[in-house]
Amino acid sequence: MRESNLGLVLRAVRENAPCSRADVAAVTGLTKATVSSLVADLMAHGLVRETGAAPERRVGRPGVMLALDGRRIAAVGLEVNVDYLTVVAVDLMERELLSRQVPFDAGAAGDSSRSAAARDDSRSAAARAEPRSAAARPDPRSAAARPDPRSAAARAEPATERLAALVRETLADPLLSGRTVLGISVAVPGLVDSPAGVVTDAPNLRWSGFPLRDRLRALLDAAGLGALPLLVDNDANLGAVAEYRSGHLAHTPDLVYLTGEVGIGAGVLVNGRPLRGSRGFGGEIGHIPLARRPRCGCGRYGCLEALAGVQAIVRRTVPDLVPAGPVTGSLVATAVAATVERARAGDADVLHALSRAGGWLGRGVATVVNLLNPRAVLLGGYFVPLAPWLLPPCTAELDAHVIAPDRGGCQVAASTLGLTAAARGGAAALVDALDTGRLPLPPPLPPTTAGTTP
Amino acid sequence: MRESNLGLVLRAVRENAPCSRADVAAVTGLTKATVSSLVADLMAHGLVRETGAAPERRVGRPGVMLALDGRRIAAVGLEVNVDYLTVVAVDLMERELLSRQVPFDAGAAGDSSRSAAARDDSRSAAARAEPRSAAARPDPRSAAARPDPRSAAARAEPATERLAALVRETLADPLLSGRTVLGISVAVPGLVDSPAGVVTDAPNLRWSGFPLRDRLRALLDAAGLGALPLLVDNDANLGAVAEYRSGHLAHTPDLVYLTGEVGIGAGVLVNGRPLRGSRGFGGEIGHIPLARRPRCGCGRYGCLEALAGVQAIVRRTVPDLVPAGPVTGSLVATAVAATVERARAGDADVLHALSRAGGWLGRGVATVVNLLNPRAVLLGGYFVPLAPWLLPPCTAELDAHVIAPDRGGCQVAASTLGLTAAARGGAAALVDALDTGRLPLPPPLPPTTAGTTP
Ligand SMILES: [Zn+2]
Ligand SMILES: [Zn+2]
Repeated sequence: MRESNLGLVLRAVRENAPCSRADVAAVTGLTKATVSSLVADLMAHGLVRETGAAPERRVGRPGVMLALDGRRIAAVGLEVNVDYLTVVAVDLMERELLSRQVPFDAGAAGDSSRSAAARDDSRSAAARAEPRSAAARPDPRSAAARPDPRSAAARAEPATERLAALVRETLADPLLSGRTVLGISVAVPGLVDSPAGVVTDAPNLRWSGFPLRDRLRALLDAAGLGALPLLVDNDANLGAVAEYRSGHLAHTPDLVYLTGEVGIGAGVLVNGRPLRGSRGFGGEIGHIPLARRPRCGCGRYGCLEALAGVQAIVRRTVPDLVPAGPVTGSLVATAVAATVERARAGDADVLHALSRAGGWLGRGVATVVNLLNPRAVLLGGYFVPLAPWLLPPCTAELDAHVIAPDRGGCQVAASTLGLTAAARGGAAALVDALDTGRLPLPPPLPPTTAGTTP
Repeated sequence: MRESNLGLVLRAVRENAPCSRADVAAVTGLTKATVSSLVADLMAHGLVRETGAAPERRVGRPGVMLALDGRRIAAVGLEVNVDYLTVVAVDLMERELLSRQVPFDAGAAGDSSRSAAARDDSRSAAARAEPRSAAARPDPRSAAARPDPRSAAARAEPATERLAALVRETLADPLLSGRTVLGISVAVPGLVDSPAGVVTDAPNLRWSGFPLRDRLRALLDAAGLGALPLLVDNDANLGAVAEYRSGHLAHTPDLVYLTGEVGIGAGVLVNGRPLRGSRGFGGEIGHIPLARRPRCGCGRYGCLEALAGVQAIVRRTVPDLVPAGPVTGSLVATAVAATVERARAGDADVLHALSRAGGWLGRGVATVVNLLNPRAVLLGGYFVPLAPWLLPPCTAELDAHVIAPDRGGCQVAASTLGLTAAARGGAAALVDALDTGRLPLPPPLPPTTAGTTP
């Protein structure tokens, strides 16, 4: 009860700062005595401060004014991708404190288990060579089609070690000095069982059934950081949270965020909350079947991802720069940059390929818009630099395929959050969990520094 | 405030009956004095009664017991379809009081404007003969592709008159005698702007921009029934509400209901509430593109509805019984019954056609399941009698196309509510609106009869 009232007061200060204790009482319906006691607690934990200064006082409002304390707290968001890891730290107002990207090659990760991985691949290839009919196709969840968990874990382990190292480096960074870290979130492209902290299936990373939260906790434990709250979630959900909290269409309650990576995922907000479905597996847009070919990484044919994912795009726009096989590592960014350059130069083949991909994207998005009637669809990740060429054919196909008049009022735009959206969204989700009483308060500050005005 | 507290007490009695006033106070957090006053109001309006009888008293619970009063109130749900109109009336416990279906031929309706309709058709056909590419295809919302509102209204008018007549007959029915009617709801297969009471677009009825609520109110006014609350909503949304409140998987919070009519619509519940999207246009599943053909009623190609809608099915299963052109009126039910008969007799062509349709249905549903991860998908309408043949191929394709393991925990089943689901759901939505303070209380009963035990 007190926890949730602390959150109530914290949100009231967030939304009304600068505001007096009396203002908070009026907004929350709590008594002034209760508010004073809760504010004292929040100040002791470095979350709220008294501003006190006259310029921030509004006429006719008595008492010392309160605001969030942006100096004490940090929330850290990590993102795993096929070609890079991202770390972002934000303060209590979700202002960016630091942001860093490090190359990461999901294709190369797990080299130590290469033989096991190669065995998986050959079995997988054999399974995929089966004739394509619902009856004859092997169950994708059968042992024959899925890598066995041991080799999946071997592939995920190096990435987890890199993540743990990134956390240690981030917490030691001077930009975060003197701050209490609320927690660490990790965004992963794939099906995530968020309450369990398990990556159920991330096909583009070739992880499955991987207990990421437990493994990361074990590694952080060894560094004396085991007590930090850890949140693992799907990258698209967290991207949608980031858009809702700080994108250029922030506070749009019915919003879809699309990750534009090797895979395509959808984060769906309904009334401002992520739509997770009954087991947290909502938002799988990447494998909407749109055509008869090409073969997709999932073993099916003609999926949205195989037609409009970044790998599919660069394979057509810069075939001279990408090898056969999965496009991973820093090559993805290089290939996207080369695509942008050639499109700007007016290369007809590149423009044609982007137009086709944008059209397929519009077809896939049309299904989402028909089902969910969102107010906005935001294209994220590598779709952002490609948006000038993807958006016109995308919106043309949307207009052709959405049943509701005027696309049901849906706006389609490129995200302004770039490649850090999911990491930022994870950090924002930690701040939101604090606001709503789902995270414990950080430890109290030393009494001499708590809540004083600098 | 009092309105919402009345609803709070009404829900407490609904969920806990038989229960004492003290029980209600404990459950709601209201004082006993407030509860007594609110209960008096609810009894005066015929919504709650004292049961008082010893057999219903639980040990150790003092005082007179309360229950909903099932004798005083009725809610009426109507449904418009391509081939029939339905009316259902339920009591305050949502028990069925009467249910009636009358044939209705959407194809024949609006005969008086046949020349205008024919003109629309020819323009439409010309527009649809354009080559199929996003750039060349005419905007489906342009004047050339849409019937003009006057002739759409002319088509909708006879149906509205039939609905008004059905309301008058229902209210005069002896089965409803002595009951106060909470309101009238109308379920329509198409895009409905529910707050405005306008049918934005119902392609299978060929209605568009039709102010159904206002027109129905005008007709009921003439019969002295103008004060009744009127609710207009999409049939799939209301079917989902019916499943949630009284289907065999009632209270499943993440649930999708599919209408199985000439059109296919989806009603999506998220946390027990209909997902409407930003303008109320969510749930459009019928035009998910799955193949290159055949042409759909919407002018596009290979839509789910054109492959697995009831009209598409009976055209293949009983081609000898259905003419070219739209299958409407009582012919739909006849053709479905003949299909069931031939399938039971083992007709290979019929079984093959049902298997194909079920497979396409599974493909379409897979996209919904991938996006929303519902706990259950319920097949309604004419899919119910066809379910023994549609479900096996449907679930096989679902297994092949859903990315989450075990279909994300999703169960697919035939509705047990039959062809009255949407009408029942509309009546239930009226009862729910009363429970949640969104409908005014019905007028008080004469003082001598209020709340007495028979
Ligand atoms: Zn795929
Ligand atoms: Zn269609």
